[in-house]
Amino acid sequence: MLINCVAYQDGQKLADIPVEDISEYVRQPETFVWVALRDAQPEELQVMQEEFGLHELAVEDARRGHQRPKIEEYGDSLFVVVKTIDCRDGEVVVGEVDIFVGDNYVLSSRDSHSLQNFLGVRARAEREPHMLRQGPAFVLYALMDAVVDRYFPVLDMLESELEQIEELIFSKGKQRDNIQHLYALKRKVTEVRHAVAPLMEAVGRLHGGRVPSICRDTGEYFRDVHDHLHRISAALDNIRDTIATAIQVNLSMVAIEENEVNKRLAAWAAIFAICTAFAGVWGMNFKVMPELEWQYGYPMALTVMVGVCLYLYRRFRRAGWL
Amino acid sequence: MLINCVAYQDGQKLADIPVEDISEYVRQPETFVWVALRDAQPEELQVMQEEFGLHELAVEDARRGHQRPKIEEYGDSLFVVVKTIDCRDGEVVVGEVDIFVGDNYVLSSRDSHSLQNFLGVRARAEREPHMLRQGPAFVLYALMDAVVDRYFPVLDMLESELEQIEELIFSKGKQRDNIQHLYALKRKVTEVRHAVAPLMEAVGRLHGGRVPSICRDTGEYFRDVHDHLHRISAALDNIRDTIATAIQVNLSMVAIEENEVNKRLAAWAAIFAICTAFAGVWGMNFKVMPELEWQYGYPMALTVMVGVCLYLYRRFRRAGWL
Amino acid sequence: MLINCVAYQDGQKLADIPVEDISEYVRQPETFVWVALRDAQPEELQVMQEEFGLHELAVEDARRGHQRPKIEEYGDSLFVVVKTIDCRDGEVVVGEVDIFVGDNYVLSSRDSHSLQNFLGVRARAEREPHMLRQGPAFVLYALMDAVVDRYFPVLDMLESELEQIEELIFSKGKQRDNIQHLYALKRKVTEVRHAVAPLMEAVGRLHGGRVPSICRDTGEYFRDVHDHLHRISAALDNIRDTIATAIQVNLSMVAIEENEVNKRLAAWAAIFAICTAFAGVWGMNFKVMPELEWQYGYPMALTVMVGVCLYLYRRFRRAGWL
Amino acid sequence: MLINCVAYQDGQKLADIPVEDISEYVRQPETFVWVALRDAQPEELQVMQEEFGLHELAVEDARRGHQRPKIEEYGDSLFVVVKTIDCRDGEVVVGEVDIFVGDNYVLSSRDSHSLQNFLGVRARAEREPHMLRQGPAFVLYALMDAVVDRYFPVLDMLESELEQIEELIFSKGKQRDNIQHLYALKRKVTEVRHAVAPLMEAVGRLHGGRVPSICRDTGEYFRDVHDHLHRISAALDNIRDTIATAIQVNLSMVAIEENEVNKRLAAWAAIFAICTAFAGVWGMNFKVMPELEWQYGYPMALTVMVGVCLYLYRRFRRAGWL
Amino acid sequence: MLINCVAYQDGQKLADIPVEDISEYVRQPETFVWVALRDAQPEELQVMQEEFGLHELAVEDARRGHQRPKIEEYGDSLFVVVKTIDCRDGEVVVGEVDIFVGDNYVLSSRDSHSLQNFLGVRARAEREPHMLRQGPAFVLYALMDAVVDRYFPVLDMLESELEQIEELIFSKGKQRDNIQHLYALKRKVTEVRHAVAPLMEAVGRLHGGRVPSICRDTGEYFRDVHDHLHRISAALDNIRDTIATAIQVNLSMVAIEENEVNKRLAAWAAIFAICTAFAGVWGMNFKVMPELEWQYGYPMALTVMVGVCLYLYRRFRRAGWL
Repeated sequence: MLINCVAYQDGQKLADIPVEDISEYVRQPETFVWVALRDAQPEELQVMQEEFGLHELAVEDARRGHQRPKIEEYGDSLFVVVKTIDCRDGEVVVGEVDIFVGDNYVLSSRDSHSLQNFLGVRARAEREPHMLRQGPAFVLYALMDAVVDRYFPVLDMLESELEQIEELIFSKGKQRDNIQHLYALKRKVTEVRHAVAPLMEAVGRLHGGRVPSICRDTGEYFRDVHDHLHRISAALDNIRDTIATAIQVNLSMVAIEENEVNKRLAAWAAIFAICTAFAGVWGMNFKVMPELEWQYGYPMALTVMVGVCLYLYRRFRRAGWL
Repeated sequence: MLINCVAYQDGQKLADIPVEDISEYVRQPETFVWVALRDAQPEELQVMQEEFGLHELAVEDARRGHQRPKIEEYGDSLFVVVKTIDCRDGEVVVGEVDIFVGDNYVLSSRDSHSLQNFLGVRARAEREPHMLRQGPAFVLYALMDAVVDRYFPVLDMLESELEQIEELIFSKGKQRDNIQHLYALKRKVTEVRHAVAPLMEAVGRLHGGRVPSICRDTGEYFRDVHDHLHRISAALDNIRDTIATAIQVNLSMVAIEENEVNKRLAAWAAIFAICTAFAGVWGMNFKVMPELEWQYGYPMALTVMVGVCLYLYRRFRRAGWL
Repeated sequence: MLINCVAYQDGQKLADIPVEDISEYVRQPETFVWVALRDAQPEELQVMQEEFGLHELAVEDARRGHQRPKIEEYGDSLFVVVKTIDCRDGEVVVGEVDIFVGDNYVLSSRDSHSLQNFLGVRARAEREPHMLRQGPAFVLYALMDAVVDRYFPVLDMLESELEQIEELIFSKGKQRDNIQHLYALKRKVTEVRHAVAPLMEAVGRLHGGRVPSICRDTGEYFRDVHDHLHRISAALDNIRDTIATAIQVNLSMVAIEENEVNKRLAAWAAIFAICTAFAGVWGMNFKVMPELEWQYGYPMALTVMVGVCLYLYRRFRRAGWL
Repeated sequence: MLINCVAYQDGQKLADIPVEDISEYVRQPETFVWVALRDAQPEELQVMQEEFGLHELAVEDARRGHQRPKIEEYGDSLFVVVKTIDCRDGEVVVGEVDIFVGDNYVLSSRDSHSLQNFLGVRARAEREPHMLRQGPAFVLYALMDAVVDRYFPVLDMLESELEQIEELIFSKGKQRDNIQHLYALKRKVTEVRHAVAPLMEAVGRLHGGRVPSICRDTGEYFRDVHDHLHRISAALDNIRDTIATAIQVNLSMVAIEENEVNKRLAAWAAIFAICTAFAGVWGMNFKVMPELEWQYGYPMALTVMVGVCLYLYRRFRRAGWL
Repeated sequence: MLINCVAYQDGQKLADIPVEDISEYVRQPETFVWVALRDAQPEELQVMQEEFGLHELAVEDARRGHQRPKIEEYGDSLFVVVKTIDCRDGEVVVGEVDIFVGDNYVLSSRDSHSLQNFLGVRARAEREPHMLRQGPAFVLYALMDAVVDRYFPVLDMLESELEQIEELIFSKGKQRDNIQHLYALKRKVTEVRHAVAPLMEAVGRLHGGRVPSICRDTGEYFRDVHDHLHRISAALDNIRDTIATAIQVNLSMVAIEENEVNKRLAAWAAIFAICTAFAGVWGMNFKVMPELEWQYGYPMALTVMVGVCLYLYRRFRRAGWL
């Protein structure tokens, strides 16, 4: 679905133009056309391919979707795939935005999983003509910056989930929940990482040494995006590393708790076993068992049994088993 | 076994030619010969070596088989080994395709484990003369693309197996099955990785910087193959990583379940031990045990015993041990 | 908040100057201005941006804060972010210092979490005119050196915490505490690492091969800082590695202790169970049980029971179970 | 001990020559001398050093032995250390071969742990004059190829050992054996890896970019050796990785089995404890216990006890505890 | 403390010279001065700094000590830090040697933890004038070679400690000792690694590509040192890796032993529980229990009990539980 299709000249909006006129405008000097699609249909992409002269393989990738984030050069033009990440109901939702950038055009196409629209990006760009004058490379930067800025709240969500788990990690009896949450969190982090890591690598090639000719003058802006991605990536690595440690710690806590249960079991078992053994002895049917005849034999027996139990109880208590 | 042997000129099929004429056609300008073998016998390979002038070491490798995926330059020609991967009855079947590519010939030879034939590739190529005109490099691309495209369903199979295991990972009493499945899955992933990783590395050298002269104009196509391999490789890494975590989590789950069993055991043992201790006490043979004489001594004793048991049961229940 | 704003010429302090005059002094040859801010407000940063002609993206980063440590070139000027690390009450406190360096100015801005002020750095620099003559690059070095020197006491704290844990790692019954301390220590190490690792990487680019023009003559000084960071980083890696091993060892110790508890439990259970079994036998109500009639049946029974118990006790003792 | 010492010219054997004449032959154009030593004594090495003009450090290394596999350039000559690997009685035996290669000589010296002799290599080389004509570089290739070809059966042995362990990994009660075998296998793999990995790295520098002048024309042959080493190395990594997983899985299996034992123990303990508790109750000595007087009290009691036991047995069975 | 201070010319010892004359000798052509200090005091270092014109930062590092091993270029001179490693009473003792090397001087300074003196190095060098003629670079090589040669016995000690642990790793009841030894060994290995790894990296830059001008002609000697360090480093990695595996295996062994203890406990508990249950049954006080009246009831009861016990004992035996 076509969202909008606008021609810009010298940093100013020239006009909303019909799709058929794109190839005309594109030929004019100092002019570029910025088209936004959503859930682009194969036919729409074919029209665009003809108007802008896009490379077949790039269009093929856009048609199929499910690409890795990447930045590919086709001659003087770029084909960029970025992933949008949003959180909805605690789940991570990953969408895809394909951007074709040439000397005098930008074509962005987002799929339906991408919850974010780029109307704000266009509006802001139109309010800053001195920036927009830099042409398609600036638009590419603005789009990527908008996408990457939305990674930060997702990162915050992941970090606060991790903190919640960490608060429970040393509580007794929560290990089953903790391990489930850690596993689920790990999956989310992995998903986000798959959006961030290849993009960081790709953006790294838009500043510094050998840079595509389009981005020659905007290196500092792409370095900024690169730096943001670097920060996100370092934070994700940190979360991953902490999750790995937390899983190990969790196992230790299970083992420690088991140990405590075992000790308690051992202690109580010992106490009752000794009582039962005493009772067993005095329950034997020997003819001659003098203490059985005593007036206070029974209270004495109870006293002995309780005494032994108490003695053991205190010893176990001191040893930390009870 | 020779499958077919065809000469092409200017993107058009010239003729099916007999093997003996290959060396003639190969000498004609703008012409190339595309030969397909299956389960090539040493004699067949020797004929081909003479007709095409293949390098001895490359032919030796093709004869022996069981090569790593690789792309080797011998002067102006390339020797390419790729692995086909298919799934049959849930198992991964790995076959091998050896491709010799020169300025004016392509020779592919697949072994019997490679379930896929390349008739479709040839048919499609013949329907696209503008592509086929690019010569042997395009044929190489088409073959590799066909092979790599078959990796995706295998990847899907591995991912859905992993998902099935993940659904059971937190269920009780399934740990033995889970660990077996995880181990089996890990083996499959390793097998696929051994087909993908070296090929990705090798294909990476067919686009970008220093490229063999044959592939000079088809860099974008090989980058596309490279990108597919990259995606598969990232997905495999993801599965591997998840398996590693799942094995750890599985161990934690075993420990947690053991802990629960231990607690239950401790609780019931305590309950019965206390009953037995009481019974033991009143089973002692002391002469003077007044409560034994009471009319309602026995019911009272039972009441005490049941009462203590119930009390303990409730306490254990509240503590989550039962 | 402006801390101070001073112009230097030829290694000597010229004068404290008002902020509005900065742009004048900056234009004079052989002169540079060194400004220190604390908790810089957006308006202050804007004034500075105008006076010094700072790059918008750099100022934007300084305004937002929470940057990764980095060194970015904007034309001939540098934008440097370093993290200060202090320990307060056993906790690690991370602050941020942003430094803008140009041909003839240095502007440092630290946030409120940075417990360290740079008055000492300025005083020392003013006492060494031959160094200060080298201009802003030397000031940058002096500031970074001061920040990095404060990392060492934090490192010492982490190392001595680790040693304390290590002393307890093989003691019985301390596993729960140990694992908690190890986890907390790991978090601190991670925090410090995030300040050190990216800075080390960035400083590495200030000496050796391609160096920003400002730092051309001060390479050896930055190599010194780099070397310090390298040492800290190696020490942190060491701590991390030791923590990982310690966590594993802790788990082993828990398992070993559990084992010992189990053996003891098994041994005592066996001893009492055998007593109870004997007592049970002699407590049976068979009519004809000759030993029950014996004069010394009871002492004999007790002797047998005690004897068997002692025998088992010794055997278990020798086997190391008790 | 001198094995043989032969001069070759133009790919043909010229003559067996005495050691003293080496320096003469070496001076002749288009001629090279190929000497083989075994368990070279210091004096022999000294003679060779003088005849061939070997570098002192290389000879020193050969004298001491126990080198890492390596390829070192000394001016125009090469000093190569490779490890032979054989298996004897299931153990890995590592020997060492030192090879000195110059423009017109090859000197190989193997120690007594190297079970393989190189007579076959020489015989084969003499049968292929067109190859041998390429001079010392070809001889070096032939020697290395012979050594590396012997790695494959060792690899097969390691892989089949691993498979044997894998077949037992999920069997009950084999964990102690498995872990011992895995540990022993790991050691062997490590030993082999130490022979393979540095050699692979070194051989990688004999083809491709900057190549020692001797090997300029034989790059494709060394690439072949490199490729074999790559395959072996990848297979070893695979075994290592599988061993690591198998050790983890083994631990899980131990824990799972323990869990099952615990459950069984808990179940039977519960069944007998309840019997004993019932028996204890009816063994109490209360005066008034009506059921004791009943005609069929005893069978009833037995019925109750057996009934309860059977009920519990079935419940545990259904729960999978028994 | 000054050990000695000697001037050399053309490979020959010229004279022991007083410290004040150093700057004179240093100016003479083809002459160099070799000074050895021990536990250098700040004043001594200052004198040396003046005589040799050492760089301030290098002297500062030497004064402070506790440096990482490193090789730093200051103009045409080198500042080298190496660690000496010795073993005393099974402990690893790490000392530090700082070496300043210029065109015509060598200054070495070792601290008191460095148990090794360099008199032997000097004596050997003076006996080899053809080597010493190569100047300070050769002296540097000789010193480093002497230091690195002392690493090998330490390595042997670590390896034999590991072997001792490995012999006990599958013995029963040694797990607590093993894990302690493994942990202690890991610490030692880490200490040695910190001396070896950075030095190896640094020495790697003294041969091959871009080499400091002083070491231009001695590349092969430094490659030899590099190779030794490589061997040590590979051996250390091997030990580390084996320790990691051994810790895991140890945990498995603990778990396996626990399992066996549990099975035994379960088996004996079952045997005695069944005896007790039988005894309990025949200890019940029912009026009508015919077997109690039988003449041979008691022997029969004992026979039944012993029979059941024996039956269970054999079954458990066969199942490997006892």
